[in-house]
Amino acid sequence: MASIFTKIVNGEIPSYKIAEDENYYAFLDINPNAKGHTLVIPKREENKLFDLSEEEYSGLMSFSYRVAKAIEKTITCERVGMSVVGLEVPHVHVHLIPINTMADMQFIKKVKLTNEEFVALANGIASNFK
Amino acid sequence: MASIFTKIVNGEIPSYKIAEDENYYAFLDINPNAKGHTLVIPKREENKLFDLSEEEYSGLMSFSYRVAKAIEKTITCERVGMSVVGLEVPHVHVHLIPINTMADMQFIKKVKLTNEEFVALANGIASNFK
Repeated sequence: MASIFTKIVNGEIPSYKIAEDENYYAFLDINPNAKGHTLVIPKREENKLFDLSEEEYSGLMSFSYRVAKAIEKTITCERVGMSVVGLEVPHVHVHLIPINTMADMQFIKKVKLTNEEFVALANGIASNFK
Repeated sequence: MASIFTKIVNGEIPSYKIAEDENYYAFLDINPNAKGHTLVIPKREENKLFDLSEEEYSGLMSFSYRVAKAIEKTITCERVGMSVVGLEVPHVHVHLIPINTMADMQFIKKVKLTNEEFVALANGIASNFK
């Protein structure tokens, strides 16, 4: 069965898209640790980060770098943190999280946003993506 | 002043080294979340991950991939997680953590190891590094 992220890539489930290319897709986490918390995924389903080929892993990391730069231009924060865990959804996803304290990285503190806020964030980050 | 990690690279502070090349250095975290918790750093000091040039960032990520593969060969775990935060030491460091649950990624649960255990872990991972 297709993962929830594959359904997002295919447009079967809506997402607040930030950027995509042939192989990778970036969109806002809908249960964010902080405003601008973004997920970057390979379009091809793979459960674990280090089971990706070195080429696909490197492509994912390069795409994530460009997305992180766009987040930093858009969101006021101390820096953008990166985390790859993946115990819940078996489809590799890189968390890019605008952080100010360690708690922003721990997935224990969640922020509620309206649809309008998500749309504005996604558009803002997308406009800074190069 | 040189960061604590620069002093490790220069051998002024000892470390449980796993691997190094001209630009990158990997060693065991001495306050690990789990057995085999490793740090990978660029030898050149830079505070924030996304302030690295794209080339240096990509090199760090490729080196981390090789280290993660070696950890996975050495340590029994569900997978190796990756995290880059950096709010405490202003020298970029990639955490590679053998994880079984989310708590292993949250920096709230620490494991105490003896010097002999650290040495055995570092030697084991180093021997699987390619």
